[in-house]
Amino acid sequence: MRFLLLRVSKNFFLPPVLHARTMVKFLNQEEAINIDQELFNQYKFDVSQLMELAGLSCATAIMKCYPQEKKVLVCVGPGNNGGDGLVLARHLKLFGQNPSVYYPKRTDKDLYKNLTNQCESMDIPFIENISEEELNQYNLIVDSLFGFSFKPPVRPLFVPLLDLLQKTKIPICSVDIPSGWDVEKGCPAEGGIQPEMLISLTAPKKCANFFRGTYHYLGGRFVPPQLEKKYQLQLPAYPGTECCVKIN
Amino acid sequence: MRFLLLRVSKNFFLPPVLHARTMVKFLNQEEAINIDQELFNQYKFDVSQLMELAGLSCATAIMKCYPQEKKVLVCVGPGNNGGDGLVLARHLKLFGQNPSVYYPKRTDKDLYKNLTNQCESMDIPFIENISEEELNQYNLIVDSLFGFSFKPPVRPLFVPLLDLLQKTKIPICSVDIPSGWDVEKGCPAEGGIQPEMLISLTAPKKCANFFRGTYHYLGGRFVPPQLEKKYQLQLPAYPGTECCVKIN
Repeated sequence: MRFLLLRVSKNFFLPPVLHARTMVKFLNQEEAINIDQELFNQYKFDVSQLMELAGLSCATAIMKCYPQEKKVLVCVGPGNNGGDGLVLARHLKLFGQNPSVYYPKRTDKDLYKNLTNQCESMDIPFIENISEEELNQYNLIVDSLFGFSFKPPVRPLFVPLLDLLQKTKIPICSVDIPSGWDVEKGCPAEGGIQPEMLISLTAPKKCANFFRGTYHYLGGRFVPPQLEKKYQLQLPAYPGTECCVKIN
Repeated sequence: MRFLLLRVSKNFFLPPVLHARTMVKFLNQEEAINIDQELFNQYKFDVSQLMELAGLSCATAIMKCYPQEKKVLVCVGPGNNGGDGLVLARHLKLFGQNPSVYYPKRTDKDLYKNLTNQCESMDIPFIENISEEELNQYNLIVDSLFGFSFKPPVRPLFVPLLDLLQKTKIPICSVDIPSGWDVEKGCPAEGGIQPEMLISLTAPKKCANFFRGTYHYLGGRFVPPQLEKKYQLQLPAYPGTECCVKIN
């Protein structure tokens, strides 16, 4: 266990992966928050619109990397990242997958209640408790717990779950940010989850520089060109009508 | 002119195209309205969510049939069909097309104002007046004027536009219902538009039986399986993660 911690701790200090070829910009936390605010305040998008597109792009990217997966556990957090998870669970179901949802802290807002209702009325099971045994029934875990506005420490309610996700051998796909990671500095020195897949939304955040998994995708094809230019995002070109694109 | 009217009038009485192979159900107006109501009231979808998915599927289907088109005029009506048009215009822009919008009767609701703002802030031009000369600048016209809740007669404001669309040689793509058509009986006896492409949303309506154009697509991949079963929709299978599917 001590050895594991040391290794993870070492990972934290590895040099960032270079993305010279695509030159896509990796955002700091403040930029990510500002872009989000502009999308709502200046461009007048509404949350459920962008959440729908984000969740759809995540489900699509997952199908590209894990087309054969059968049982998927979507771990849903209390904020917008969790909302993306509820949307992607629904689209995975429509794509013929078999998702379940673990949603330990339900948000008391209509948007989240409605997204939950949509999943439940599509016969997506919501599990009440999580254990190593329960987790081992799944072929893929989606981590949509915390997003780009996360600031440590992890709330006590989520610590046991993140401990399980840190130990599991089941592949994890993280939505936007590997949960528990610092949005800029990546995996915490004391250890954190190591997803096999990362789906950055809108634009990658700086922590993606420390991602060592197999699949890195970008989703959320809704960024207005003027906004892309203002923040010099230099997003990779989405092919054709695709809603997601592989990075590197 | 008399000859043209006779031909269109004859079209009206042609036997419906048979869809025996797919057996997809063509809805009457009441069924279409009831399904829409259930999506909102029972399944708790919100309008902007489904409009986003519907508009995205329309833009995607258009790209499949007209990948080379450059100038597209999206004619937007005052209701939900028009909202789909505003969404598809935005996605067409993100797909690299050059859409403009003609939106003669703007709806005084936040949803529509926001959708308009999103288009305008993506540099999609809104034209103020339409004439034959103006129309001839475009390679494709999208008709998102009236949808499945349309009941004749056409409001006077839209009569000159529909006359232009009836006469033009530029291909027309109709969203859900060719505007001015009876939702069940199709093209009116006195003449109507003849779209080259029809994109049915959720499920085709009975008027699609009288569609004589080249491309018929289905979009709006969001129907919960229980709702599909209840109304015996027998929707065609969407391939992979596609958001639209060709019918026949």
